[in-house]
Amino acid sequence: MSQLKNDRLLRALLREPVDATPVWIMRQAGRYLPEYRETRAKAGNFKTLCMTPELACEVTLQPLRRFDLDAAILFSDILTIPDAMGLGLYFAEGEGPRFERPVRTEADVAKLGVPDPEAELRYVPDAVRLIRRELNGKVPLIGFAGSPWTLATYMIEGGGSDNFARAKTLAYDQPALMHRLLDVLARSVSTYLNAQIAAGVQAVMIFDTWGGVLTSRDYQTFSLQYMRQIVGGLQRENDGRRVPIILFTKNGGQWLESMAESGADALGLDWTVDIANARRRVGGRVGLQGNMDPTMLHAAPARIREEAGSILAAYGSGSGHVFNLGHGITPDVQPEKLGVLVDAVHELSRPYHV
Amino acid sequence: MSQLKNDRLLRALLREPVDATPVWIMRQAGRYLPEYRETRAKAGNFKTLCMTPELACEVTLQPLRRFDLDAAILFSDILTIPDAMGLGLYFAEGEGPRFERPVRTEADVAKLGVPDPEAELRYVPDAVRLIRRELNGKVPLIGFAGSPWTLATYMIEGGGSDNFARAKTLAYDQPALMHRLLDVLARSVSTYLNAQIAAGVQAVMIFDTWGGVLTSRDYQTFSLQYMRQIVGGLQRENDGRRVPIILFTKNGGQWLESMAESGADALGLDWTVDIANARRRVGGRVGLQGNMDPTMLHAAPARIREEAGSILAAYGSGSGHVFNLGHGITPDVQPEKLGVLVDAVHELSRPYHV
Repeated sequence: MSQLKNDRLLRALLREPVDATPVWIMRQAGRYLPEYRETRAKAGNFKTLCMTPELACEVTLQPLRRFDLDAAILFSDILTIPDAMGLGLYFAEGEGPRFERPVRTEADVAKLGVPDPEAELRYVPDAVRLIRRELNGKVPLIGFAGSPWTLATYMIEGGGSDNFARAKTLAYDQPALMHRLLDVLARSVSTYLNAQIAAGVQAVMIFDTWGGVLTSRDYQTFSLQYMRQIVGGLQRENDGRRVPIILFTKNGGQWLESMAESGADALGLDWTVDIANARRRVGGRVGLQGNMDPTMLHAAPARIREEAGSILAAYGSGSGHVFNLGHGITPDVQPEKLGVLVDAVHELSRPYHV
Repeated sequence: MSQLKNDRLLRALLREPVDATPVWIMRQAGRYLPEYRETRAKAGNFKTLCMTPELACEVTLQPLRRFDLDAAILFSDILTIPDAMGLGLYFAEGEGPRFERPVRTEADVAKLGVPDPEAELRYVPDAVRLIRRELNGKVPLIGFAGSPWTLATYMIEGGGSDNFARAKTLAYDQPALMHRLLDVLARSVSTYLNAQIAAGVQAVMIFDTWGGVLTSRDYQTFSLQYMRQIVGGLQRENDGRRVPIILFTKNGGQWLESMAESGADALGLDWTVDIANARRRVGGRVGLQGNMDPTMLHAAPARIREEAGSILAAYGSGSGHVFNLGHGITPDVQPEKLGVLVDAVHELSRPYHV
């Protein structure tokens, strides 16, 4: 493997000294980029885009050609695992993901097995290998997966949901069945992420998009517990370097202390969290990633710079901070705004790393 | 005014001793009740239901005929104020509230005045007077309003929103204009709530439904600051008793300490907050209202009882707790389930009040 030319991301996640705060953006390979929309049109649909390594590689690299980003993130979807389990993932235009065969009964859960990442999910490690070759050591590549709870909500609801009534009712009325489902998902996610690591990803992020809709106690029981299980089962070295793990629970700001005890190296923060306060609460144990409001990218360039400066100041001196948005970049953002942000982070963060 | 026969709610909000934990439910007068759906059908549409005191009174009283609730809450809508300001509120079937004339420019804001509650909003105090007469002291009547920030989001977006891009961009790029809008809204809410109090409401709740989508700093600046201004301007006595004020920011669990310093008597908690932890953080200064997951009402009766017991145990001994859901009851709940909950709260809470 080629020597990594920019290792700010890996160093910051492990709280090792850096010259400037690294920055990457959730959904940086996405619809706000005209070249992404072009590649997606060529693919015909979103699923084909995810499942064709050459196309996934192309869109992964697109934002790096425009912006001075410190990491690439594998272009994929969190629902590849349930799809490989046979649920029949499809994307209804303008409606988000759907499953043809949702999981609702004991018999449905009994049928689920752990997918083989180098068989049913082969297109994912294939994309990782291709991207690593094309990146040629420019920046590290981040792999990812959805959390077991988050995957379970889509699998039970059959798609997105406003209040997760089906998923929660299953958890409330049939907790043993829910735990069986979460366990097979946790084993699947571990296997899948280890395959991504073996194929070459240099850091890993677990997206717990819907852990924040649970009560505090149920978050521990149904979400965090299984993320801890995954973290404990991951291969933590690649190319002779530690593979840092980032845990991100959207709306999880109340639970940072227990997330910091999960074994993860860093925590993702959404924009509702005061990052200065978060660092006081957990900064000695884990790195922090985030946390600008994605909507700030609609504001004027000077305001974006000001906000970046204010988040950097709130985190303060020393390593351990990876700049990012608090959630994915939205399709209606002008690409130039992201350039303003990335440059502002590098420029304004230098005084905090002297 | 007639003597109040059940004053548990008022006592608990002020942390005075009670014999059992009082309980009422957000949206207790709502679509899950067949008799509500019947009255609404008679009214023809939601707006007429809100604006006709006899009908608003009828639906306010309906849940009290079924369940042993410790409070009535005025049936109304948080968007009555912007409607009275001339924005043209309407409800598109199955789509939520919309405004014909959203507020987007300096000229739009300049046109807004403080509505006279006994003129343009006369139907609200009229409903309060009627409900108080019909209640005849059975339980206290709660009045309410939306927070300035929450009202502003609807007024700017022209309805609901996924990411509040318009409202936030206005706050980010034109903060002075946003503050002018929030100031006229804060004065309008104060005047409106004082009119409700003068007409007879015995407690007041401010619904900050969308404060939780802000960053920590912007929450203080654009939401909490104006709620504090309102609290400071309210008439705090009625019938010779203190009128307690409840502040509820959905997704505000990270900011309870600053909310407790707002001058409010009690804080509403959504279901993501650990109520034991909340009491440790602020319990000595304010009462707490909440906080069962509304989705729990889909579970089996025994599970609902267990959850009620677990929340009561988490709050612990002594007064200061008003049981409620962490958000409004949903239309798909079977009414009997609410009966199970209300009875469980009264029965299971007695040991904590000896």
